[in-house]
Amino acid sequence: MESRPLTHRGAMNNPLMRPPNYQALSHPTTQQQQQQPSSSANGVQGKDEEEEEDPILDSPISYNTMESAPPSNQMATNILDSEEQEFPGIGQYDDFHTIDWQRDVARDRMRHRHIIKKREDSIWDWIKSGHDAWSGWVCVFMVGVFAGAVAGTIDIGASWMSDLRFGICPEAFWFNQEQCCWSSNETFYDRDNCSNWKSWPQVFGHEPEGAGAYIISYIFYILWSLLFASLAASLVMMFAPYACGSGIPEIKTILSGFIIRGYLGKWTLLIKSLGMVLAVSAGLSLGKEGPLVHVACCIGNILSYMFPKYGRNEAKKREILSAAAAVGVSVAFGAPIGGVLFSLEEASYYFPLKTLWRSFFAALVAAFVLRSINPFGNEHLVLFYVEYSKPWIFIELLPFILLGVIGGIIGTLFIKLNIKWCRYRKTSLLGQYPRLEVVAVTLLTAFVAYPNPYTRINTSNLIYLLFSQCGVANNDSLCDYQRNFTSANTAIEIAAAGPGVLKAVWLLALALVFKCVVTVFTFGLKVPCGLFIPSLAMGAIIGRLVGIGMEQLAYHNQDWAVFAGECSTGENCITPGLYAMVGAAAVLGGVTRMTVSLVVIMFELTGGVRYIVPLMAAVMASKWIGDAFGKEGIYDAHIILNGYPFLDSKEEFSHTTLAHDVMKPGKSESFYVLTQDSMSLEDVEQLLRETDHNGFPVVVSRQSQYLVGFVARRDLNIAINQAKKNTEGIVGDSTVLFTASVPSPWMGPPPLRLRKILDLAPITITDQTPMETVVDMFRKLGLRQTLVTHNGRLLGIITKKDVLRHIKFLESEDPESVLFN
Amino acid sequence: MESRPLTHRGAMNNPLMRPPNYQALSHPTTQQQQQQPSSSANGVQGKDEEEEEDPILDSPISYNTMESAPPSNQMATNILDSEEQEFPGIGQYDDFHTIDWQRDVARDRMRHRHIIKKREDSIWDWIKSGHDAWSGWVCVFMVGVFAGAVAGTIDIGASWMSDLRFGICPEAFWFNQEQCCWSSNETFYDRDNCSNWKSWPQVFGHEPEGAGAYIISYIFYILWSLLFASLAASLVMMFAPYACGSGIPEIKTILSGFIIRGYLGKWTLLIKSLGMVLAVSAGLSLGKEGPLVHVACCIGNILSYMFPKYGRNEAKKREILSAAAAVGVSVAFGAPIGGVLFSLEEASYYFPLKTLWRSFFAALVAAFVLRSINPFGNEHLVLFYVEYSKPWIFIELLPFILLGVIGGIIGTLFIKLNIKWCRYRKTSLLGQYPRLEVVAVTLLTAFVAYPNPYTRINTSNLIYLLFSQCGVANNDSLCDYQRNFTSANTAIEIAAAGPGVLKAVWLLALALVFKCVVTVFTFGLKVPCGLFIPSLAMGAIIGRLVGIGMEQLAYHNQDWAVFAGECSTGENCITPGLYAMVGAAAVLGGVTRMTVSLVVIMFELTGGVRYIVPLMAAVMASKWIGDAFGKEGIYDAHIILNGYPFLDSKEEFSHTTLAHDVMKPGKSESFYVLTQDSMSLEDVEQLLRETDHNGFPVVVSRQSQYLVGFVARRDLNIAINQAKKNTEGIVGDSTVLFTASVPSPWMGPPPLRLRKILDLAPITITDQTPMETVVDMFRKLGLRQTLVTHNGRLLGIITKKDVLRHIKFLESEDPESVLFN
Repeated sequence: MESRPLTHRGAMNNPLMRPPNYQALSHPTTQQQQQQPSSSANGVQGKDEEEEEDPILDSPISYNTMESAPPSNQMATNILDSEEQEFPGIGQYDDFHTIDWQRDVARDRMRHRHIIKKREDSIWDWIKSGHDAWSGWVCVFMVGVFAGAVAGTIDIGASWMSDLRFGICPEAFWFNQEQCCWSSNETFYDRDNCSNWKSWPQVFGHEPEGAGAYIISYIFYILWSLLFASLAASLVMMFAPYACGSGIPEIKTILSGFIIRGYLGKWTLLIKSLGMVLAVSAGLSLGKEGPLVHVACCIGNILSYMFPKYGRNEAKKREILSAAAAVGVSVAFGAPIGGVLFSLEEASYYFPLKTLWRSFFAALVAAFVLRSINPFGNEHLVLFYVEYSKPWIFIELLPFILLGVIGGIIGTLFIKLNIKWCRYRKTSLLGQYPRLEVVAVTLLTAFVAYPNPYTRINTSNLIYLLFSQCGVANNDSLCDYQRNFTSANTAIEIAAAGPGVLKAVWLLALALVFKCVVTVFTFGLKVPCGLFIPSLAMGAIIGRLVGIGMEQLAYHNQDWAVFAGECSTGENCITPGLYAMVGAAAVLGGVTRMTVSLVVIMFELTGGVRYIVPLMAAVMASKWIGDAFGKEGIYDAHIILNGYPFLDSKEEFSHTTLAHDVMKPGKSESFYVLTQDSMSLEDVEQLLRETDHNGFPVVVSRQSQYLVGFVARRDLNIAINQAKKNTEGIVGDSTVLFTASVPSPWMGPPPLRLRKILDLAPITITDQTPMETVVDMFRKLGLRQTLVTHNGRLLGIITKKDVLRHIKFLESEDPESVLFN
Repeated sequence: MESRPLTHRGAMNNPLMRPPNYQALSHPTTQQQQQQPSSSANGVQGKDEEEEEDPILDSPISYNTMESAPPSNQMATNILDSEEQEFPGIGQYDDFHTIDWQRDVARDRMRHRHIIKKREDSIWDWIKSGHDAWSGWVCVFMVGVFAGAVAGTIDIGASWMSDLRFGICPEAFWFNQEQCCWSSNETFYDRDNCSNWKSWPQVFGHEPEGAGAYIISYIFYILWSLLFASLAASLVMMFAPYACGSGIPEIKTILSGFIIRGYLGKWTLLIKSLGMVLAVSAGLSLGKEGPLVHVACCIGNILSYMFPKYGRNEAKKREILSAAAAVGVSVAFGAPIGGVLFSLEEASYYFPLKTLWRSFFAALVAAFVLRSINPFGNEHLVLFYVEYSKPWIFIELLPFILLGVIGGIIGTLFIKLNIKWCRYRKTSLLGQYPRLEVVAVTLLTAFVAYPNPYTRINTSNLIYLLFSQCGVANNDSLCDYQRNFTSANTAIEIAAAGPGVLKAVWLLALALVFKCVVTVFTFGLKVPCGLFIPSLAMGAIIGRLVGIGMEQLAYHNQDWAVFAGECSTGENCITPGLYAMVGAAAVLGGVTRMTVSLVVIMFELTGGVRYIVPLMAAVMASKWIGDAFGKEGIYDAHIILNGYPFLDSKEEFSHTTLAHDVMKPGKSESFYVLTQDSMSLEDVEQLLRETDHNGFPVVVSRQSQYLVGFVARRDLNIAINQAKKNTEGIVGDSTVLFTASVPSPWMGPPPLRLRKILDLAPITITDQTPMETVVDMFRKLGLRQTLVTHNGRLLGIITKKDVLRHIKFLESEDPESVLFN
């Protein structure tokens, strides 16, 4: 065999042939770094999510970074022609476009190396390098602190405003009912009966009991609800349309490498936080847990602008956002580890281990801050701390799995109905009156919810009540068993259900139907609304009902072999609260299709480590059943509904197509390429006018079609405009050169040299590559496009949109439903 | 712009141009599937980890799979020349070689599609397709069941043999001390004082107390230890050399895509299980938790051969092995979620979400099986269930972080010393007498350990003792405080330490020094040995000491502001057991550099959900400190020591080199390529003799160097041998053809057509691609090699070994320390 031809040697040893955009793009210069502290002194508000094209930020780094290249690359630096220009603003993305992970990550590494190299120069540079090294940790720390503080504030606000619908604390109107009653210094604390707190009938001089008082309470309840809900909807409509919904589908899309400007901005943060408090207080069937993820991501995005490493690099910023998503769940449920797993399993696309550790740290900090604020007023970090006195018995696995099956079915039904309704809303007149819709749903909810005590109370309180064990202190009618407590320490005996339990069962069944129906119409309203709490509530009701059934079955059949071991002693062997917990996990699993993270969240939420096996069994059953009826969870379904370019890493691509079948141009289309040294500026501009492609391959010549590199449309536009402005003699006839050097005797007008914006290392595949490999590369490498070659010649291009359309096509769906690039 | 040239059209529409090895390789035929039940009836033993090249298994599928290809690929099937051959045995790997993930995954998808297509044909095919779809779940289920059962057996065996060193149960010698004492029906259970259990002095007629009895016990202790240890070492040396060590470094390497035949075989499984019981019983400073991961992976590997989908495909098999690693930790600690996270964070390389769910399921099943066996004899699943009566107070974060720092330092020191010793063992005479070394270490351990009660007892029991809170029932001298318990229900008051505590502190300090020293020499012995338990023990001792210090500080300074809130009530506000738990996590974190998974394991291990924040703080501190002194955890350090080709996905590559600098051939070397239609068989065979490359690129011609595809050495060898055997007229002068069709008027001897073994979709990069991108592609796509091109021409090749050597070179380490391909 012979050695490879040496003809390319000279070119290859030229350091300028390295992908120039990796060098030329957006290195913070010294000015920028010095400028940073003052702009951060202006506060977070001074930073916007809109990426202004700051010429200082985008100005290229000096070429001395090349000294760090190995010797083979140091030759021929002197051929660097001073005519070759730097083009600011290159390497950013347009709104609703997909990012190129490889390019961004490479840009960051180049920046990093630049800082490492400069570190030796001065103390100041050394400090800057230290700041840079720590900035990731500092940033996630701050995200944790702020998110914890915001979440605490939201919790306190929502609790106060929820109670406002029922009454007021005249001595200190800023107290909620619990604080008001604590401050009353009565010896025995009873939430529902304390002298300081005045219900609305009492405020207006009525007796707290009686039909009149009931009607006044009812009316106040409805009025406050309408006020809060319409306020929330108005705020969202007027100031931040992105603040509606749970935000998780969009966060998933953004994390997968998509730009939605303003989605994580300061207005969204503010309005979403306010709107969340209002919407929850309006008693709508929604939770504030999902939106807290969005809020935390807004905080992550805003804070990332304080660190140019993250703020100016979309790929790096997603590391912070992944951590922020973990923080969101951490503060929503007081579940730091569950949050990290949620980010890993559900939210994030690209999750290196470094991000795992940072997420972990941020989630810890946020949970700690929240614990210090202590909005729930108990010593546990968790929302629904439970303690059951008996372990579960083997036979109970059957009802637990049954709960999983029910959860899977309800989850799937919920997704299908909700998507149908959302699609109807999109296509019908209804979509034009979002505020009216909010008001209507609120009115209906408040009207139906008030008479039933289980729907009247806060959904969180309902879940807590359903999870808890009937002990001495619990005097809800749910715990009206025919048993006597002789002392607080004796075991709870198994007992027949009293009339209160039977009534509670009926009310709960009604509450379940109501919650199921109303949540379908609520999720998708133009207010911030999360699904976790309503799903948990539905599941908890089902679980409690099944649990009461099992308990009574065991009571009436204590001699059955399966119950004999545990129940024959007379102690209560079946804990209906545990069933509620399992049922809640099952329905939430059916709706979101989470598994491991859900189990971890559930047991962080409840402190029930001993119940991993029941939880796992129910969640697995729920996921299996759900997946059998429809693969997507609610978030994926909404992503599809909205046509976001999300390439799901969970679904497998299993078709026989090849890259050749997918690539553009197809058979009858023409392929637009640039040549490296034979096109005039006019040709290029005409091409830009005639096509709307986001980038063009550059080839050696049209005849040979051998691939040289790839240039992005945006970069090309910027470079041409800059050159026209700044360079003398650039006219329509000027040749556009992508080569490293200008041919030595140059005739005609001065050439436009654009090698700097040329990506010399585009990802290429052969036309015979199976599409499964191509999809895999898109997912794992975060590609925006790949070029297709055959025996070295360029044949076509495959973009992420092409891949998504192809998948839709193969699944017999409408490829046109993929909307963005 | 013009449309792309049409010259390649005809070729591209030819379905034969798809990478043929994706079609031609190892599809289970009907016979094979029918054969499966009988061979599995022979039992697991019938399957070996050695991949025999079963001609039936490897026979190619029929070409009707092509009907599933889209229309554009259906043309010209008739040009399929019957002379083109199928080559059995292609697509497998040699021992100590790296696998090609993309190829294996593509092979599996092809196989899957084949089954889906055939499903319509008959009921039997439909059943087979169902079996195939479920086989992943069935396989991990079985892994869970078997691993749970094996772990339970090992736990019971180790507990019995450990007690055998102290005495025997004469009535039923197969009982351990606890069971023996339970069976004695004494009213008050006291482990150390029951009439049924006879210590060795008692067996030989001595009094249980006194100097003589002490000496007899001492001698028996040493003798049994020596017997067990030498037996373990002999078993390992004779039957399964791979059974030594913890196995986790090798598992990590295997999971990253490396073949070590026999490492996960039945002999390794058997000997490792036995040896583990013996080594633990010998009282060596090692644990059985790490090796359990290896054992679970052996079970996973062996069971995967029952499912051709996994057994015959190295990439798919790694999905089962990832789940098996999770199962291993799940059964080792009774921590299913921690196990899944361990697999994700530490062990696995390629961890799709599907594997997450399966791991989760398998870990659940295994934990459940283990719970049913109940080797620890308590109702909790966990090893060290603890319950503390007081929550931690804010000021305690300081000592917790201090523990983290100490843990990080100890962990780093341990790694450095252990690696130094292991390197010395490798290079010195010592390495030639492994059995002698085991005996010597055992003798020393037993001799020093016996006099100190804290080292004499089982390490697990020591950890449990250190973790626990001093309550009424605890009568160890560690709990000798000057306090009186009035009743079991009153709070534990804070109290001054008694003389027993002071003595215990001294003994624990000695035990710590002893453990630290002896573990350095133990980890690396030729017996199965894990690090988790010794690390936890060291950390627990340190933690307990710090905890006792804090407790006494608080007792003597109850008026300090920081203690005032909690300690002034007279209750014990500082729980030394919690410090032990935090310290244990810190040292284990320092040694292994795990974070999230460690915290989850710790709180699953202890049931202490309320202590996430202290655990997280200590583990983060430990990791930061550890990473500051040396990046690698103990497992990575051992991987480097052994020269395994492990491309760490945690470390970032941050150098400026380009693909061009790394690729082979270098400047003065020659490049060996095949041409697609101009080489004779003799040329090819000469090339195979002269070089030892694992594969060769195929180009259009030597002049143009345009890349056509890539062919693996092993496949080429097999194909040539098969062709020589089976085809008439193949001589040295026969042309080797990689083209799709034979030129029409063919002269000379019949050509050897090898397009089937040609990979038409090799991953290519340009020579200007930054190495960081290349490393990223190797990691994420699981490449074995990538081809380097410039403007479509082939320039060279980069293999995984080249990448690893390059990284070593840049880090100023010896590139030659990378040993395998």
